[in-house]
Order: sequence, then C-alpha cells, then structure tokens
Amino acid sequence: MSTLFRHFRVHQVFGANTNVGKTILTTALVRASAQRGKNVYYLKPVSTGPLEDADDYHVNRHTADYKKSVHAECLFRYDEPVSPHLAVKMKADLEGQDVILPPSDGTFLDSVANRIRTYAKSSLNPTHMYLETAGGVHSPALSGTSQADCYRPLFLPTVLIGDSKLGGISSTISSYESLLLRGYIIDAIVLFRDDYYQNAEYLKPYFAERGVFVHTVNAPPERLSDLAANFTSTDKYYATITALDTEHGVGPVVDHLDVCHSKRLDELESMPKRAHDSIWWPFAQHGLMKGEKDVTVIDSAYSDFFSITNKSASSPTESILEPQFDGSASWWTQTLGHAHPSLTLAAAKASGRYGHVMFPQSVHLPALKLAERLVKGGPGKGWASRAFISDNGSTGMEVALKMALRAFTSRQQTEIKEDEKKQLGILGLKGSYHGDTIGAMDACEEGVYTCEWHNAKGYWFDPPTVGIKNGEVFITVPATLSSFPISHDVRADSLANVYDVENRINSSLARAYAMYITRALEALEKRGGPKLAALVLEPLLMGAGGMIFVDPLFQRVLIDTVRGRRSGSSTSWSGLPVIFDEVFVGLHRIGMESTGPLLGVYPDISVNAKVLTGGLLPLAVTLASNSIFEAFLSDSKADALLHGHSYTAHPIGCEVANETLAILDKVTKSDEWVAAQQSWAKPDGTASPVWSLWDPHFIIAISKLPQVKEVMTLGCVLSIKIKDDASGYTSHSAQTLFQSLTRASQEDGTLSTAPGGAAFGMHFRTLGDVAYFMTSLNTSSTVIRSIEDKIWQTLNE
Amino acid sequence: MSTLFRHFRVHQVFGANTNVGKTILTTALVRASAQRGKNVYYLKPVSTGPLEDADDYHVNRHTADYKKSVHAECLFRYDEPVSPHLAVKMKADLEGQDVILPPSDGTFLDSVANRIRTYAKSSLNPTHMYLETAGGVHSPALSGTSQADCYRPLFLPTVLIGDSKLGGISSTISSYESLLLRGYIIDAIVLFRDDYYQNAEYLKPYFAERGVFVHTVNAPPERLSDLAANFTSTDKYYATITALDTEHGVGPVVDHLDVCHSKRLDELESMPKRAHDSIWWPFAQHGLMKGEKDVTVIDSAYSDFFSITNKSASSPTESILEPQFDGSASWWTQTLGHAHPSLTLAAAKASGRYGHVMFPQSVHLPALKLAERLVKGGPGKGWASRAFISDNGSTGMEVALKMALRAFTSRQQTEIKEDEKKQLGILGLKGSYHGDTIGAMDACEEGVYTCEWHNAKGYWFDPPTVGIKNGEVFITVPATLSSFPISHDVRADSLANVYDVENRINSSLARAYAMYITRALEALEKRGGPKLAALVLEPLLMGAGGMIFVDPLFQRVLIDTVRGRRSGSSTSWSGLPVIFDEVFVGLHRIGMESTGPLLGVYPDISVNAKVLTGGLLPLAVTLASNSIFEAFLSDSKADALLHGHSYTAHPIGCEVANETLAILDKVTKSDEWVAAQQSWAKPDGTASPVWSLWDPHFIIAISKLPQVKEVMTLGCVLSIKIKDDASGYTSHSAQTLFQSLTRASQEDGTLSTAPGGAAFGMHFRTLGDVAYFMTSLNTSSTVIRSIEDKIWQTLNE
Repeated sequence: MSTLFRHFRVHQVFGANTNVGKTILTTALVRASAQRGKNVYYLKPVSTGPLEDADDYHVNRHTADYKKSVHAECLFRYDEPVSPHLAVKMKADLEGQDVILPPSDGTFLDSVANRIRTYAKSSLNPTHMYLETAGGVHSPALSGTSQADCYRPLFLPTVLIGDSKLGGISSTISSYESLLLRGYIIDAIVLFRDDYYQNAEYLKPYFAERGVFVHTVNAPPERLSDLAANFTSTDKYYATITALDTEHGVGPVVDHLDVCHSKRLDELESMPKRAHDSIWWPFAQHGLMKGEKDVTVIDSAYSDFFSITNKSASSPTESILEPQFDGSASWWTQTLGHAHPSLTLAAAKASGRYGHVMFPQSVHLPALKLAERLVKGGPGKGWASRAFISDNGSTGMEVALKMALRAFTSRQQTEIKEDEKKQLGILGLKGSYHGDTIGAMDACEEGVYTCEWHNAKGYWFDPPTVGIKNGEVFITVPATLSSFPISHDVRADSLANVYDVENRINSSLARAYAMYITRALEALEKRGGPKLAALVLEPLLMGAGGMIFVDPLFQRVLIDTVRGRRSGSSTSWSGLPVIFDEVFVGLHRIGMESTGPLLGVYPDISVNAKVLTGGLLPLAVTLASNSIFEAFLSDSKADALLHGHSYTAHPIGCEVANETLAILDKVTKSDEWVAAQQSWAKPDGTASPVWSLWDPHFIIAISKLPQVKEVMTLGCVLSIKIKDDASGYTSHSAQTLFQSLTRASQEDGTLSTAPGGAAFGMHFRTLGDVAYFMTSLNTSSTVIRSIEDKIWQTLNE
Repeated sequence: MSTLFRHFRVHQVFGANTNVGKTILTTALVRASAQRGKNVYYLKPVSTGPLEDADDYHVNRHTADYKKSVHAECLFRYDEPVSPHLAVKMKADLEGQDVILPPSDGTFLDSVANRIRTYAKSSLNPTHMYLETAGGVHSPALSGTSQADCYRPLFLPTVLIGDSKLGGISSTISSYESLLLRGYIIDAIVLFRDDYYQNAEYLKPYFAERGVFVHTVNAPPERLSDLAANFTSTDKYYATITALDTEHGVGPVVDHLDVCHSKRLDELESMPKRAHDSIWWPFAQHGLMKGEKDVTVIDSAYSDFFSITNKSASSPTESILEPQFDGSASWWTQTLGHAHPSLTLAAAKASGRYGHVMFPQSVHLPALKLAERLVKGGPGKGWASRAFISDNGSTGMEVALKMALRAFTSRQQTEIKEDEKKQLGILGLKGSYHGDTIGAMDACEEGVYTCEWHNAKGYWFDPPTVGIKNGEVFITVPATLSSFPISHDVRADSLANVYDVENRINSSLARAYAMYITRALEALEKRGGPKLAALVLEPLLMGAGGMIFVDPLFQRVLIDTVRGRRSGSSTSWSGLPVIFDEVFVGLHRIGMESTGPLLGVYPDISVNAKVLTGGLLPLAVTLASNSIFEAFLSDSKADALLHGHSYTAHPIGCEVANETLAILDKVTKSDEWVAAQQSWAKPDGTASPVWSLWDPHFIIAISKLPQVKEVMTLGCVLSIKIKDDASGYTSHSAQTLFQSLTRASQEDGTLSTAPGGAAFGMHFRTLGDVAYFMTSLNTSSTVIRSIEDKIWQTLNE
C-alpha cells in the first residue's frame, strides 16, 4: 500500500507513450537531483530489450560523476524489446512455460515496495527516488494488467512524460485522464520542446486550468551511429539540461517536485486539526474525542485497505502512511473493494453521457436497466412489479412506509380519520433500525438512536435469536416467550438446520411462536394499542440494532400469522403489507441475493441500497408488488406517491449499480465463494442454506474463548458479542478489547500484509458490547485468514 | 445535438493516435459499405496538409468503382500538415489574422451537423456515413478544444481505430477511456494485425470483458515511391480487405456496426413501454399517464439540452433524436450544463483515489476542503463553525431540525417531557417545503404534499409576496394582515427597492409586519398552540410551494421578532434557533451565494444541496453555529447527533462539489453575469441587490399579457402565474397553456437552435397555475434570449 516518507521523496514516472523520452528525462531528473546534493535511487522494476540498452545501465552511465549518490537498479529483466507481458511469454516459450511464471501483480508489487522500504532506511540516506514504469500508462505489466492499474496500490505521486511529437497533445491528455481515473496525484507533466509541433504551447494553458504543472526541456541531440561519439554528445546534453540555471532543463522540475512533497506532508499533518475544527461527524460524540489524535486521516484507499497516516511510526525512516484494513466495509457499503476501476469507469461513462437528467415521466438507459434487473431478475423476482428509486436506505424506507400506509388505508372498509392515519402503527421487532430520517425512525422502537421528534408508532416483538455459544448453535428465546411451551434456550444441531425454514415450519417451536404472536396481537387489540398498518422486518439480521441474528422461523411465522396464510404466492397483499428492509442484508451481503427464498415468503415491498452501488455512492431502490402500486392510481395528481428527490435516479448511481450487479454475478460464482460455501456444507456434503466467508473452525474456536459471550456469522459479516455487565450501545467493552487491532504490527507474519507487503492495522467499529468485522464481497480468503489470525491473537493476548 | 436516423447509419471515427491507419481503415469501411450495396457518405470535417494527400481525395480515388454510391467531402481545408488549431494559426499568420478567424466550436459543429442532416434527406438516399476526425481523440479542434469535446454535442456512435504498434495497447486503452469520459457509445475498436507486437491479442480479451467489439484487419502494403505503383498496390489492398468473405478485412466491422445501429433503434423504441411497465415515477400520477407516449426517453444530454426521441418526426428522413431545452434545470439541480467534463473528471478522480471511505471520526481531503470552504468562505462565512454532511436536501433539513430541536430543549430551564418534545413546533411560512422525508414534511403545513403519517407541527404565517403585475412591482399583502395599517397591496417603485431590506427596516410596513407577527405569536401562546422550538425559512423564494417570492422585509422582521433583537451578530442563538433552508435558493441559483447578506441577518443553521454538486449527484451540507454544536457535547455517546448515512461525505460528491464551487467562482464573475447584472441596474446605474439572467424588458412585457396574472424572476428562475379560477397544485392551466413549447418547431429562427443547429423543443414543469423556467448558472444569453422568444410566441399564439 501507499508509502510516503518524510525524508525520502519518491515519484513514479509514467510515459504518455513509448519513445517520448521517458528514460532520458528520468535520467536527467536523477542527475539533476544528484547535482543538487541529493542521494538518488532510480528503479526500473521491469526492463525489456538488450542489456546494453537497459535503462538502469543508461542511468548509471550518465550519472558517473555522481557515483556515490546515485543508485540505479532493475528488478526484472527480459531480453525481447517488447511489452513486458510479451517478454515474459517469449522467455517462457523459449525456456519452457513451467520455469518462468510471470510474477503476479501482488508478488511483483511486493518486490517493488520492499525495495523502496529497504532503501528508505538504508545507510545510503536516500532523499530522492524515481521509479520508471514501462511503456505507456496502460502498457501491460508483467502479469498482463496495465501499468496504471498494477502500480495503483503504492499510490506514488506521479510525473507524466508528455509526448512532443505529432499527435502528442492527444496522447498526453488521454494518458493524464487514465491516470486521473486511478486517482493518482499528478505532480508534473514534462516534455521536450518542439518548436514545430508546439505541443507544450497548447498543453501549458490546458493544464494550468486544471492545476497541473507543465514544463518543457530542450530536446536531446540526434543519435549518432558512433557509440563513443554518441555517448559524449548525450552526456554533454545531460550536463546542459541538469545545470542549475537552465530554464529549459529539468532543474525546475526537481524543485517543483520537492515543493509538492513538502506541501503534501504539511497538508497531511494539518488535516486532523483542520477536520477537528470544521467537521461535525455523524454518530460521533465530539465531547469524548481527545482532539486531533482521534481523527483518522484517510489519504487514499485501495481494495480492502485504507491508506492512513501512521500515528505510531517509531522511526523517521518509516512510511508515514500505512495500510489499514477497512473492517467495517466502510460502514457496510464496500462490495468490490475501494477504487475499483470498473466502477470508476461506469460512473465516468454515465456522467459523460447524461450528467443528471430529471426523472419524473422520463427514462434513461441506466435507470431502466436497473429497474428491470431488480424487478425481474433480482430481489423482486417472482413478486415485484415496480421499482421506485431514491437516494439512500433511509429514504428508500420512507418511500416503503408511504407505500404501505397508503395501501393499508385505501383498503379499509370504513374511512380512517386523518388523526388516526397519523398514528397508524408498525409491527416489527425490537432492535429494528431503518435509517436516520425521522419517518424511518418512527417505524422503530425508541431507544438509543433518537431525537426529540422520534415518535415510535407500533408494536415490536422481542425476537428469538441465533448464535454460537461455546462451540454450539443456540436459539436464544426471550423471556416474553417463557409462558409458552418453550421456556429456555434451544440447542440446535447446526446453522444449516436452523436456517432450513421449510423443514421447521411444522415444529413445536413454530407452533409456540404462532401462539405467542397471535395472543400478543389479540392482547394489543384488546387494550386498544396502535392500529397496525404494516409489518416491517430486517430479514435474518438486524444490523444497527446490534447485529441481532433473528431466528428465521420466528420471522416466517410472524409473516404467515399476519397474512393469515402460509404462502407468499398471492398476487395481492393480505392482512398487512409486509416490508423487507434489505438495505443491509440484501444483494449477497449475508450470502444470498435476497432473503425471500430462504424464508419461503416474499414481501409486498422491499428496499435495497448499500451494496447496490458497490460501495461508491448513495442510491436506493424500493420495490413494490402490483397490488401496492395500484393503491396510488387515480385521476388525481394528489393521490400519486408524492415523493421524489431532485437527483432521483441520477444516472451515475444507476450505472454504477448496474456495473456492480454485473460484477457480482461473477463474484458469486467465483472459486473463492464456492470454496467458502463448501467449507460450510452439511456433514453429508450437501449445501447449507447459509454460509460465510469466515472460516467455520475459526468461528467455533473463538466462541469457546472465555471473554466471548456469543459469535455469529453469515456471508461477509462476523459478529462477536463480549461478556460485559453493561451491555448495549453505550458499552465500551468491545471497543476496549479489540483496541490493539488498530495498530499495524511490524512483527506480523507474511500472511498479514496489504498489497505492497506492508503490515497493516485494522479499522473496526463496535455496537456496544458487539464487535463486528465485515469484508467486501470479493475480499480474498488470504486476507480473511490473516484477519482471523489477528482477531485470534488479540483475543488470546 | 445528437442526430440519429433510422435509414442512415452514421459513425464517427476516432484514432488512438496519429498514424494508426485511421484514413486507411475509414476508406476501407466506406468501400466495404459500398460493396454491400450501400450509399455512403464520407466526411472529413477538417483536413490539414497538401491537397494531394487529403483524406477525402484518398477516399474518392480508392472508391472509384463505386462512384455513384460514394460521396466524400471535406468542410475546412488547411495546407500545413499540423494539428488543426495550428493550421488555422499558420494560415492566419500568413494571410492576416483578421481574415481567417477559426470557426468557433459552435459554428463548426453547426456546419457539420447541417451537412449530415442535408445528406440524410438528400436524393442520394444515403444509408451509411463515416465522419473521420483529425489526429487522436484529444487532438485540438479548429478552435482549440479537443476533438472528443468538440464533437460531443452530436453524440455520434463511435469507431475507435486502435494502435497496432509498440505502445499501442496503452494509447488504445487511454483513448478509449477518454471517449468513455465523454459518454460516447463505442461500437467498435478496429486495428491492424501485427504478429510481432500482438496488440490485438491483448486488446481483444481486455475489451471483451468490457463488452466492446475488437476487430483486426490485415495491414496495408509498404508505401511505394512510384506513385502509380503505390496507387495500384493500395487499391489492390482495399479490394482484398473489403471483399465480402475476408476474415481479416473490414466486412465484419460493417456488419457489426449495422447490428449496433439496429439494436440502438430497437432499444430506443422499446424504452417507453419497458419504462412504463417497470418504473414507479416520483411525483407522477400513473393513473393519468396515457401510456408510452407520456414517457420521455432521454438518450443523452449536453449543456442545456436533453437529447430525446422525437415523437413528432414528420418525415422518415428526420432525426429520431431531437434536442429539448432542460427548462426545469433537471428538477432544479443543473448548474453548469449536463455532462460537464470537469465534473466528470472530478468524480472519476475521487472514485479512483478513494471509492467511498467511512466518515465518522475520519477525514479525507475532498470532505475537508468542502467543509472549510462552506464554513469559512461560503454561505457559512461570518457565523457557521461546523459542516455536517448528508445525502440530499431532505436529509440535510432533517439534520437541521434535529440540531434545532436539541439546541432548543437543552436550553430550557424546566425539562420538557418526552411527550412534549415529540410535539415541539416549527414557526414558518405557509407554502414552505423542505423535502419529502416525513420529518422534513412535518416542519411544513399539511397540504398537497402529504402522506398518512404527515403530522404538521407548528405555526405558519401567510406571507406577503413580491410580483410583477401588468408591468408594475407589487407587494401582495395577505388578508390576515388586513386589520393592520396595511390593508391592500403595496405598489413598489422597483425590485431594487423591494430587496433593499436595510432601507425598509424602519418603514411603516415593517412596523405593521412586526405588530402582526407579535400579536399572532401572543395569540398562539394564549390559546396553548404548539410550543415553538425553531424558526424555519426558505429565504426569499419558496420553490415547491409554488414559486412564492416572499417579501424579504417580512422574513427579516420575523427573524428579528423571534430573536428579540435586530442584529444577527450574536455568537449564540436567541429566541428560537433559526434555520435557513437554502437547498433551492443557495449557491447563486437566485443570483447570490447566500441570502444572509441581503436579509441582513444570519441563520443559526443552514442547509445547502442541489447546486452544491453542480447538477450531477446528491449531497447536502448542514452548517451550524458553534452554539448549536455545543448543545450536543457531553461525555455520553447517546447525546451525540445520532444521524449518519452509510455514504456520508462520499468522496465523489465532495470532490464534485469542490469542483463546482471552483467553477462557479469564475461563472459568477463572467461577462455574461456582469452584463445581466447591468441590465437590472438601478436607473442611476448603481447595482441592484437583485437581478436575473432573464431580460427585464421581457419580464415587463409578459407581465402585461392578458392571460398572465403575475410574473417574477430572480437569478436563473422565471415564474409565470396564469390567470385561472382553479388555482393551486392540482390546476392544469399552466401545463395546458405552455404545452406547445415542448414541440421542436422547424420554422424557428436561427436563434432557436441547440448546439449542432437543430431546432429544439422545451421541457418545463408546472406547479399548478405557475409555470416556471429555470436555466443553468452558465446558460448563455443567446440561449436565454431564444427561450424568451419561444415563451413570448406561445403566449401570443
């Protein structure tokens, strides 16, 4: 992951094309740095072509005057003068495929990063470094990904060598845009002077407008056929353009890069205080923050990792940036890892085609595709007829509530008075959470998440829950159920059995649930409790309420009871409209696209968000059955669903969602997923209805630890409840217990490194006495195993 | 704007670089199309270099066998073999700068588009067209913008000629990405076979994964020095690669492009029904929609215009896409025009650097810069201390309400009971609107925008309003004020005087307002009305309530009265916390960054959204003063502001906001703005506190029309109230009156054309008896004048 040293300025050099003078200008930068008294490290990670033409040799030869302060190296060398991926192939063809496997991006990048880190703390006291990439920005790397993608985890500040020839304006700008799409910091564009094509005259104002420094350097002399004469002429050229006072030399570039480096360091250093002074954070008690040191500066992010400023750097030669595993999956949104290029391109494409276009009674392709996908082939399959798009989970739930309330009131035989309508109640479960807008809050019990206007309307059952205690699966039955046949916790054979709802539907527990629910609802009616208008559930897992894994049988029985029937196949809602809040659990977060098939019933309304947009930006979709939709049809505009945000169905969000869903189709069939599913298979080898990316042996093992009360996992989610007298949201026990996870430990084994081979700490969040850990949907098993190791070590410290 | 003909397939050909074979492969495409019996039009809009080498000559020479079916042309020709922008410059240097002005992008594009349209309906019955661009994708166009940007308004489907040489993988991918950033539909990538570099072997799977067709064509023979021999050899080459059955010829490309064209037509045709069947639109009564024909298909958008399917195309040779002016500024969000490349790049950059990263107690540069900008140098200047970021205007207002309610309750001497807290009231104005989430709704009177749970809490004054009737400025005083000294409408000299609040603060009207407000509040308290906890205002203009321009003096007096003082300079809130909902009016929409300076008072809390992100995607910022912030400080997490969306402060939104604000700094100082401000200057030439992008003479003129009740304008907003017995939201009068605006009239004058010279219709929305028209902040005066003409014509039909 990204490295940034206080004393050691490192830049990577990309070329706008091959043959634009990348090596010449990089050599000149090396020499100019050396001339300014710096110790310089030049690295060519991959070199192709004959040895005598190799770039690192060239650098060494032309910096002979600065032998002591310049070190030039190459890590991987191939003979053919072709693109690295082909050079590897040709060498393999020549020497036998088995012998020469190209290093994977990971292995390759680890080598590069390790070399940089080694140099940073070497006795050579290096101060400047230039890493010269191969070919153009998108030339293939050894393993076949592009240069720009391959080096992205290191996130090195960048010098782009522009193209001064005919067509060079275009290739320079396009290369710049490709680097920008990867988020790179582009400190300078450098190119040769060319008085005929005058590319620089065009590029300078173009990039000045975009805040990018452009500098021209006198072009090199013609190549001479006599080697000795050529060397002398070239060396003289270098001497000229690296002289301290040459306007059209590289000196101004070196100075500029030094300034950029200092500015970046200053900026990073200033950020905690500035943030602490100007930002009001969500769900954060500023009164408990101990100033700047409680602020995490996220400089960039890649895959599963943030790159944060390293508060505990022990040595001045350590990187001031370190990787941190994003253990909350960035507040439950991460799906495909940070900065996934496909999502960036999807966003760019929609922005370039539409910007945002207003949505009422109009349609654009990204929205249409998304609606059709979710209604017909996604979570709405088999029951939904319409997609209503809004901005986030909370607004999606407000839309769902508006739908359900109208559907309910419009079907009543006797008209409900306006005042009664305002007090219509929601049937749900204790621990529910549907978002922070006040309407969504009112569908939940009052509790921790509250505000003055929060006015909980409805009735909430205390649900039985599923968990693993001391190696065994239990259904924990709440005290309110104790007067029914089931009066104590139920031990279950396995998670597979607990989640086999169809097989449990005729059990005595199911009958007890039904009886309990029926009596409770009768009692509610008898005492004139709130008139219920909708059943609202987070199926299987209530997230913000404390990672509560609800017994699926209870939810199924509750739905059946409310509907007065056992099947979800009716075309019209019955009893009460049923809303599934799948904002958190939907779209494979817990290992299934949607929860209906497992529960054996479909909702009348459901909401998706979070994973929907791959962890990039907000969007929500509320799906509805036709019988819900029809409740709003009339010839009066006032009867319409009068809800709409200005940016409803913004094309960027819809396109990113479509791309996410397309990629998820592959992820969910990937070897990693198949292997994880197999690890959770039943003893007879058949598939379990539930599974997890976390290792079952690890789960069992930590459930047996003395400080652990209960463990549970589904899909990407791992929840560990700590034994604590003061339970609930205000408890700090989990936070305290796992605090040491945040530190990157240098002594970790090789498993525990982020891309680029650096040891990493972990970001995680707690809900009172519950610590949870969440991966992206495509986090590799290697990374998950190393996280498990870290958690295990922390619990056994 | 974009053109798409049923019978006439048009593609533009971009090159991944110069010298990649763009002309050769385009010539081959022309010839292959001709060979397949098509009538083909080849257009080289700009040609540089000697005539004998000109591309259109080359095409004509090598399609001699198909003389009757091939027409090749060039529109602008220059002698120097350099980039077009330089060729123009060289010609100008040679012939005198005054003689040869480069055509602007607009003029140039009009010529190109007109040529295409002329051909489409010509008796040549053309079926295929290839437009060959110059150089690479970002090579400068005549006026200096890049090819990719210059042609963007036409939005032609694209063939990218890839680069088969060393480095060509990179330039091909980068060029593809630059085209993608402009939203182009890329139907095919075509490049020469090269068995040594094997670029195609890499690019085929690379682009297959991205759904893009890649095809290789045998490379041309070596160029021969003998001209005749060279011609024969080249012609033979063309014959070979355009033969019907050649695998490595261009035939498969022609066939593929035909398929793409058909698919696109089918898709566009299918979209209305598919959308009508799967989408639930916001604020739309589906029961009133008459099926597919009420659905607008937006194929793309650019600047101020949508490109929509043309439902009224009278002739089969007309484009099935036509421009439509986005007269609602895409539901009040558009700021800089659709698909602004700088915003796309800002979004891409943030996505590439961060994706989304979780925000509580962490910080990233885009969020920090935005918070600092808004707090210190933007609408928060002088009073705000903190920025709280949420997802849209409605959530931003919910946050504001939570802040105000807590600030109010925490300062009360006697503790307020929980039940009372739920009923705390808002003081506001009738016609307010703060969003569609239920909490934001509850801060407004119940009215049209409602749902079962809507429970309006508070008291709302009927406000005096400002409007222009029959050429004169009036303050319309509501009946509720009639018992006070002011009993009828007040005629005002000018808008400038009405909005000079400081000058009116001691007027008799101000005293009447103060008396009225004080007595009403006393009466409210006497009858035990709701306990008021906050004053919430949309300053100057209440949008969704019906474009109500409130007398600013009334709002000022109301604030002063509530605060019990005249100045806004206190460091702590007094009386009630005051919220400014500037979601719609803020950030220059009505000609000022923020309304505080005009009103002479600052709020304690304010909300910005919409313009904030330039019309691209949702984001909101709630600003608060320090005295509001402090009400949440304690050592208990439960006292924190427990509001936060998963995607809070998503970096894309923050970066796009920063870019928008940076561009607005230029727009608001632009010549266009200065000229508009001058047109609204006072008679003595000094600046008016208010002004509009709409022409003052136009405003006065339409206010005098018999069917117009009242007109008003500020900044980008024009509001026309129609005389109608059935006023209010459910009225259809404005919709009916202006219906004909939606049609693109071919007889319009030259003023009334969109980029590319096409006549355009207008999208607009109404609020009952009010039709409003809204431009972007950078819509040109030329476009606004043509819109005024259209409105004028419609009202005089």
